[in-house]
Amino acid sequence: MARRLGVGLIGSGFMGRAHALAFRSVGTVFELELQPELELIADVDEAAAAAAADALGFGRATGDWQALIADPAVDLIAITAPTHLHREMVLAAVAANKPVYCEKPLAGTLAHAREMTAAAEAAGIATLVGFNYLKNPIAQVAREIIAGGEIGEIVSMRGVHAEDYMADPDAPITWRHDPVGGGVIADLGSHIVSLARYLLGDIAEVSATLRTVHGSRPVAPGAAERRAVTTDDDAHMLVRFAGGAEGTLSASWVATGRKMQLAFEIAGTRGSLAFTQERFNELKLYRAGQEPGRDGFTTITSGPDHPDYAPFCPAPGHQLGFNDMKVIEVKALLTALADGTMPEPGFAEATEIQRVVEAARLSAGEGTWIAVQDV
Amino acid sequence: MARRLGVGLIGSGFMGRAHALAFRSVGTVFELELQPELELIADVDEAAAAAAADALGFGRATGDWQALIADPAVDLIAITAPTHLHREMVLAAVAANKPVYCEKPLAGTLAHAREMTAAAEAAGIATLVGFNYLKNPIAQVAREIIAGGEIGEIVSMRGVHAEDYMADPDAPITWRHDPVGGGVIADLGSHIVSLARYLLGDIAEVSATLRTVHGSRPVAPGAAERRAVTTDDDAHMLVRFAGGAEGTLSASWVATGRKMQLAFEIAGTRGSLAFTQERFNELKLYRAGQEPGRDGFTTITSGPDHPDYAPFCPAPGHQLGFNDMKVIEVKALLTALADGTMPEPGFAEATEIQRVVEAARLSAGEGTWIAVQDV
Amino acid sequence: MARRLGVGLIGSGFMGRAHALAFRSVGTVFELELQPELELIADVDEAAAAAAADALGFGRATGDWQALIADPAVDLIAITAPTHLHREMVLAAVAANKPVYCEKPLAGTLAHAREMTAAAEAAGIATLVGFNYLKNPIAQVAREIIAGGEIGEIVSMRGVHAEDYMADPDAPITWRHDPVGGGVIADLGSHIVSLARYLLGDIAEVSATLRTVHGSRPVAPGAAERRAVTTDDDAHMLVRFAGGAEGTLSASWVATGRKMQLAFEIAGTRGSLAFTQERFNELKLYRAGQEPGRDGFTTITSGPDHPDYAPFCPAPGHQLGFNDMKVIEVKALLTALADGTMPEPGFAEATEIQRVVEAARLSAGEGTWIAVQDV
Amino acid sequence: MARRLGVGLIGSGFMGRAHALAFRSVGTVFELELQPELELIADVDEAAAAAAADALGFGRATGDWQALIADPAVDLIAITAPTHLHREMVLAAVAANKPVYCEKPLAGTLAHAREMTAAAEAAGIATLVGFNYLKNPIAQVAREIIAGGEIGEIVSMRGVHAEDYMADPDAPITWRHDPVGGGVIADLGSHIVSLARYLLGDIAEVSATLRTVHGSRPVAPGAAERRAVTTDDDAHMLVRFAGGAEGTLSASWVATGRKMQLAFEIAGTRGSLAFTQERFNELKLYRAGQEPGRDGFTTITSGPDHPDYAPFCPAPGHQLGFNDMKVIEVKALLTALADGTMPEPGFAEATEIQRVVEAARLSAGEGTWIAVQDV
Repeated sequence: MARRLGVGLIGSGFMGRAHALAFRSVGTVFELELQPELELIADVDEAAAAAAADALGFGRATGDWQALIADPAVDLIAITAPTHLHREMVLAAVAANKPVYCEKPLAGTLAHAREMTAAAEAAGIATLVGFNYLKNPIAQVAREIIAGGEIGEIVSMRGVHAEDYMADPDAPITWRHDPVGGGVIADLGSHIVSLARYLLGDIAEVSATLRTVHGSRPVAPGAAERRAVTTDDDAHMLVRFAGGAEGTLSASWVATGRKMQLAFEIAGTRGSLAFTQERFNELKLYRAGQEPGRDGFTTITSGPDHPDYAPFCPAPGHQLGFNDMKVIEVKALLTALADGTMPEPGFAEATEIQRVVEAARLSAGEGTWIAVQDV
Repeated sequence: MARRLGVGLIGSGFMGRAHALAFRSVGTVFELELQPELELIADVDEAAAAAAADALGFGRATGDWQALIADPAVDLIAITAPTHLHREMVLAAVAANKPVYCEKPLAGTLAHAREMTAAAEAAGIATLVGFNYLKNPIAQVAREIIAGGEIGEIVSMRGVHAEDYMADPDAPITWRHDPVGGGVIADLGSHIVSLARYLLGDIAEVSATLRTVHGSRPVAPGAAERRAVTTDDDAHMLVRFAGGAEGTLSASWVATGRKMQLAFEIAGTRGSLAFTQERFNELKLYRAGQEPGRDGFTTITSGPDHPDYAPFCPAPGHQLGFNDMKVIEVKALLTALADGTMPEPGFAEATEIQRVVEAARLSAGEGTWIAVQDV
Repeated sequence: MARRLGVGLIGSGFMGRAHALAFRSVGTVFELELQPELELIADVDEAAAAAAADALGFGRATGDWQALIADPAVDLIAITAPTHLHREMVLAAVAANKPVYCEKPLAGTLAHAREMTAAAEAAGIATLVGFNYLKNPIAQVAREIIAGGEIGEIVSMRGVHAEDYMADPDAPITWRHDPVGGGVIADLGSHIVSLARYLLGDIAEVSATLRTVHGSRPVAPGAAERRAVTTDDDAHMLVRFAGGAEGTLSASWVATGRKMQLAFEIAGTRGSLAFTQERFNELKLYRAGQEPGRDGFTTITSGPDHPDYAPFCPAPGHQLGFNDMKVIEVKALLTALADGTMPEPGFAEATEIQRVVEAARLSAGEGTWIAVQDV
Repeated sequence: MARRLGVGLIGSGFMGRAHALAFRSVGTVFELELQPELELIADVDEAAAAAAADALGFGRATGDWQALIADPAVDLIAITAPTHLHREMVLAAVAANKPVYCEKPLAGTLAHAREMTAAAEAAGIATLVGFNYLKNPIAQVAREIIAGGEIGEIVSMRGVHAEDYMADPDAPITWRHDPVGGGVIADLGSHIVSLARYLLGDIAEVSATLRTVHGSRPVAPGAAERRAVTTDDDAHMLVRFAGGAEGTLSASWVATGRKMQLAFEIAGTRGSLAFTQERFNELKLYRAGQEPGRDGFTTITSGPDHPDYAPFCPAPGHQLGFNDMKVIEVKALLTALADGTMPEPGFAEATEIQRVVEAARLSAGEGTWIAVQDV
């Protein structure tokens, strides 16, 4: 019989909604020991929170996130507030000895990420950071293929996360443009870095270039007043992995026309992989040594032979959607909580990701290669 | 404030599960007047039903579908049992004056479909049949494009629904091979017919060929005993639409390698559309009169500018999954129930679809064109 | 040492030019016993022919095709004149005992095709009809795969040849609209029929629908005067192959947006093939029995492991172009002439293709299935 | 009336053959003032040259390339010998006052490239270097789109040229591994650099990483003896364009499975372009400001509305092949020679390309950004 787990959610934007959906569906999709209940939601004020509770199906609402953390019926803290607010919330949750499920990027600064990680580790708290694209069954297959040596030793990776939601110079300034911890390198760059680390392990060194394409933005939608933007819109990195592979990682939110191009191509000595989140139920695999005249990239489509697919649908090729990855993420969290293991990627991994992001910032500022271990 | 609607679900297989997921998520995704509650589930016996209730989150379970229909806390009857059982269940639900949400195909015979439709219409019952692919936002866009004259007068449609789950000659015989109402023309053919009608309207005439590729199948997985199969594995139709367009529709469950190829290409005098459910968040649109040297098919990816997408995700290109279409279907049902309108496609439309399927069977049997109105 | 072969070309339009290019390049691409020389070109009058000779590199020109056939320096007759002129030219060439390389379709009527075939066979003349898409290395690979049983027994084929060069209702009437032998079923339909026969063998029966979408067209570009069109713009067929496979074949020259969609999907009991001439250096192959979780369609790209590719380029994936297929066709012709064998597809095969086209016309006219052997 | 131009070709490998084919076809495809004649071919010795002359259709052969340059019937020197031989040949040709058509890369060292450029400029000699991919009509369209401002100001470019012909560690060492001027950065890197410059102009700075993946290779096919390889197999660059755009360029000949991935994605403030030579008759174009709900990348297929396509084929979408780009290249050369203008890309441009390659080598060696103007 499933045990109840009270969920407290802070924030009700795009990601808050995705969390709510995931918590609500996960028990139907997966067989779980812990059954989440949408206990309490916090937002900027009581009214916003009450509306969110109604929309997202939470039992109660509060305008005070600290009350949420303290609430005895709340067993798990889910944080989807802007990045610069994470630290205070996370530390409070840790102090309350409650597991934390935090949206990415974990922190505005590397120091904060380290502080949060140290606190959670000291308290023995389970943590999970919402790099949901890693939960895509096809991403898991890619990792299996690489880890199993199916494409040999990895030679190179070219990766990118490009979207265009800031392509319009009149898109208003947001917390994502915060000089502390903002910019596309943190927002989308962290996704491609997380994927690179997930697939190929530690990144040893980076050489990067960051660029602010639109130097000012309106302070609000349609506002005449503009504020200077100092964070990056477009970023490119050379990377050397500890394992020897080399390559490039790019991030852009001004890539006109791209909506979800989180993509990579990885070449190994015995094969290659190509993937784009634009068609995230597909993975292209080339294996050396195929029959001459019949060789080529095979397009694998996600199906029940892959991790975490079958609970959604027993039929192959029917496809998962964006929100389903969040369901898998929540499943991983709840399973770890039930088993007393640490979910992945936790704060430690998120801090490693952030270290690469910070190395890129330093490299771009100084115009030199930066060893990630020195950051 | 949302009103409660008690859902009674009959059947807990692939589709039962999809229904449960949809009813569970729909209230979080969409703002609804009616809030479904997973009240009662019925399966072949008490034990199976109890297990299903536990897995899918229903409050109560029963081994008796008639009890489910009679249950006062059940306001809506959802039927995902095998096709040949639909008639009795539907008629009971109608007699109980409860709205019915039934999986496709509606009935094993056209006579039964008509009987069910007449009963529901006489009782003024709301009905919905689960042709979920019609709820895909991109399919809705395709219909808008055609209905709005954006590609001119429609000249032709080539459509197909091909999968390979019966490609193995040792895949066992199932109720889908039932001589009454079975075969791929009913199972998958009905999907491409429903899509053809949804997009282009009435089909006036068909000439068809149906073929049983594997003449016998094991009676159960791995069984040595085999039974003769008399229903079709592979079907092809010429069609003439009432509106003048002509073309072909095919259905196959022995299309080795295809997992979800529900696809069409529609040519109009001013443009064309191409689609496949294998990449169901994309629609290819060609419009005549583009700038010379810059013309081509545009790949539209689903996004918040399209019907029913934004409630899942505010960002374009992030993609819906298979189960999300079921959520939209349930939303359409609940909205219609709240508004007192008739959801679409209801029994009447399902009967029209079945009429085309029956015309195809007759055509194949007699080797002649069959006018659908004569069926 | 290569022996000289004098080429006489009748016609200098699109196809005449392609012939000239092919004859000019073939000896550099392939090692040949017979070295073609562009000896003489005939066109509608002396002036046109002289201009064509200059443009296409022919040594001499004539306004009289009969003189060309009679010319002692001309060893091979290449015919690219409109279809309705083929018969007279072919019969004259055969009478002159010269091999004939004729563009498709071979004749305006089946009776003419038979007459030409009989004459050529009686004279023992080598003939080749320009179904150039069959010479694509990837089409040859597809045939190898099927013939070698690599995808098992063939279950179905869905094929199409769709373009849009007549989509504009003001595109003028041409000889392709000639009530004798015209229409899209002859022009493009013959291509998909030739491919179907090349891959799967004899077509036993057809049920077809032909439609004239634009009932009149200008008599010349921009002309106010219009003439009624009685030939088809859009055609669809159900087909039954002698070998048991079934399926659909479509042809359209009003498929707005399509420029070169000669495409097929073929399903066998052990695999499938998918192809479109829009990307004619690629073939998608699925083979049953692949490793679970790694299976999918493999995209084979043309390369030196495939027939007739290496002489163009030793590197795989560098791609052949449209004109290269004509070079391969001419190579096949010259090799057969050197070896004293009969090139394929010759008049006999072209007549078989035309028989299917005629069966489609009869079927559409009578509204019944037509057995091809009865035509 | 076309004037004769005697062509002398040095080398008869892959590229020699491509040159021969192009010179042979160009006069049929394009209307030209100068009509090339395959006058004389030189190879390593008389026998090889004689065989090549026979295979490729040259009138005469020689084992002495100096004799070829001196030959009075030779008006144009085409060089397809290994890179390290270019300098001596080019300088001799320039001394003989004959235009030079040289394969890429121009020289083994930047100093040599400069010397050759200076000599040619001093002599007023027309030169062309064989960056044939720039002649693809679709590449020309991409340039038009960018130059015309159709996608706004360019923000970023991600480019790659990846193949796998050295992926096998037992592929033998060749002149392409020559420590002077070799490695993938010179061989394939020069292609993507040429394309980057062709589309976006000068590259100001680079930061690069070069890696030798396979440290030794057999001295000959199948040989047991191996020699150390010191040149790079896999290369990645960050680039800053003088115009402000930033991005990455990669080159690899160990990209297992890739046969011809010369690809780019370019984002501008008003649109984007995506291209891969693997489907080089297609260009994907996104333009900002499309109708909401109907926007997306448009796949443009090459056709007669694009530069240099119509002479090959009047019909759109029928596709050019690899050798056709060489025909366009030769057309550009012959047209310039006839007009007395300088063909592009000539030695000066090839030297600029080489400067970027050299900057990448320096950057990789020193681990710093390198300003191209300082090289």
